Amino acid sequence: MGNNILDFDTVCLSKDGEGIEIIDQTKLPGEITFLTLRTDEEIWRAINILQVRGAPAIGVTAALAMYVLSLKMPKGSYEEFRKEFTREKEYLDSSRPTAVNLSWALNKMDAVVKANEGMAPDDLIPLLKEEALRIYREDIEVCHAIGENGLTLVKKGDGILTHCNAGKLCAVQYGTATAPIYLGQEKGYGFHVFCDETRPLLQGARLTAFELQSAGVDTTVICDNMSAMVMKKGWVNAIFTGCDRVAANGDTANKIGTSVVAAVAKLYGVPMYICAPTSTIDMNTPTGDQIVIEERDPDEVTEMWYKQRMAPENVKVFNPAFDVTDASLIAAIVTEKGIAYPPYTESLKKIMEQE
Amino acid sequence: MGNNILDFDTVCLSKDGEGIEIIDQTKLPGEITFLTLRTDEEIWRAINILQVRGAPAIGVTAALAMYVLSLKMPKGSYEEFRKEFTREKEYLDSSRPTAVNLSWALNKMDAVVKANEGMAPDDLIPLLKEEALRIYREDIEVCHAIGENGLTLVKKGDGILTHCNAGKLCAVQYGTATAPIYLGQEKGYGFHVFCDETRPLLQGARLTAFELQSAGVDTTVICDNMSAMVMKKGWVNAIFTGCDRVAANGDTANKIGTSVVAAVAKLYGVPMYICAPTSTIDMNTPTGDQIVIEERDPDEVTEMWYKQRMAPENVKVFNPAFDVTDASLIAAIVTEKGIAYPPYTESLKKIMEQE
Repeated sequence: MGNNILDFDTVCLSKDGEGIEIIDQTKLPGEITFLTLRTDEEIWRAINILQVRGAPAIGVTAALAMYVLSLKMPKGSYEEFRKEFTREKEYLDSSRPTAVNLSWALNKMDAVVKANEGMAPDDLIPLLKEEALRIYREDIEVCHAIGENGLTLVKKGDGILTHCNAGKLCAVQYGTATAPIYLGQEKGYGFHVFCDETRPLLQGARLTAFELQSAGVDTTVICDNMSAMVMKKGWVNAIFTGCDRVAANGDTANKIGTSVVAAVAKLYGVPMYICAPTSTIDMNTPTGDQIVIEERDPDEVTEMWYKQRMAPENVKVFNPAFDVTDASLIAAIVTEKGIAYPPYTESLKKIMEQE
Repeated sequence: MGNNILDFDTVCLSKDGEGIEIIDQTKLPGEITFLTLRTDEEIWRAINILQVRGAPAIGVTAALAMYVLSLKMPKGSYEEFRKEFTREKEYLDSSRPTAVNLSWALNKMDAVVKANEGMAPDDLIPLLKEEALRIYREDIEVCHAIGENGLTLVKKGDGILTHCNAGKLCAVQYGTATAPIYLGQEKGYGFHVFCDETRPLLQGARLTAFELQSAGVDTTVICDNMSAMVMKKGWVNAIFTGCDRVAANGDTANKIGTSVVAAVAKLYGVPMYICAPTSTIDMNTPTGDQIVIEERDPDEVTEMWYKQRMAPENVKVFNPAFDVTDASLIAAIVTEKGIAYPPYTESLKKIMEQE
């Protein structure tokens, strides 16, 4: 195995076609380890303990998993096969209950089985492979298209700030927020990228800085509270972040701290760009006010990453995992189908109505 | 010893009058330990390894130290005494070369010796005690006055956000940014206080949350990147922070991240108040552009508090210790002599010209 993770997919079918190969993200940034997952238990565990993480990557893993597991399912009859398929699907679905893309991909695979009722398992399996690889390829294509669109918003030598990890490591290739950076890197744009470390779980310092550095991108880690300083100095020309959900009016839920970056960017006149696959744009959510924000374990804040207590015992902690960035702070939303500009209620509708 | 550090001065003369009693801040927030420093080496080390920290507290420690040490100096002649006094002064001055208050306090004590040339050491020592206690009392009075002035800016039940530690632990009592909070607490104001954890060194989580909680103040720790969320929710009515230097135009250098809080506060209409003893207002610095910002060791960011590497090896890190908050983002500057409002060029001048 080489040392540059960018030469490899974050998740893909293994060379022998009977397993899933992933980069073990629990070992990053210290160690680059590839794992081949073959059994349902290995796959379940990999998702559960975050060896593979990030909504798109989890979805692709789940799709490939249902194909790989189908190879070993009983092939006597459709009914027998379907029963086992359903059992495995439900088992994997329990690996991370809140990951939307997990259920989404499992249901996509399940739909293939259901749509071909009565078909011999040996004939079904190639259809499952086709669907899994379609989901895998689509992820790559969507990220690539976001990259191409995003790249039109910046120029050679620009300084770019990103928050959390919406990188290659949360998808198959390119990532979302990092896609314009990687495509620019391939074309010699020479970006200077600032990675917010992204407290409390440090995805920016651990993952984004790691993958960008690995790709040879000029990368600087900053604490989340240094964004105003780098923007005031004029070092940042654009901000690219990912998103967890975009409401119909453009309000965007993303990793906690995104809205702080947006507020600072507004003050210093730096454009804030959200990179959003259309799958994350939810036209049924009118505004950010309807997005429920998960609050997580206080220990994430008070015991740091390695379980050393850094705040008084029993002190109250507010630990929201995400925040909502007001649409008014967002300069553009970059999708695989084009770029939406304000007013988003109109521009997002137009994009979502495209084929 | 009791458990509430607020019942004790952060630094004071020991009960027998021959030592300096401090709270050992290297043990916080886990353990409340008091130390009595008696020798020059103990005092030097306490300042050097941050057992006592914060500009005002260091100044008071140095002043008391010169008195305590003078008790054991040779008393045969003024010359002999002065020689030893100078030696000890220079020794202590080397404990933290960049701490302005350290030299300031040592020079104040030295001035007493110089102003009384030829005086018998036994007569000099009471004058040194008087000066040291004056510096000690003045610190308490200045912080108390800042608290009284700051308290006029808030009302009962308010939510207050603070950044870093400009608390009791960096002064003798009350602190600067925390002074309005403590005075309000004494008067039953029932504040709800949010402490930014303050990366990279976590003074907010470790020290401010600790001392506020110890005082019975309703205290919630947040990561620095959560300030926008709590302000958008309407939980914050005012922000109080300390400062390292205020320029003549009101631009304020303070712990890194202060200007992020200010930018977010501006967006959400929350007033940003800087608590500044007039000793930190530097009329010879026209604007923040002339304030040089110290950059610190990258390891503070990448290896966290307990030396676990959390970012890739050799990645670039930008680690400024302070930032400058534009005067335009500051609602008021609270001093012991009154409150300065914009335009600061005029209001600060007026305050500094007061007796």
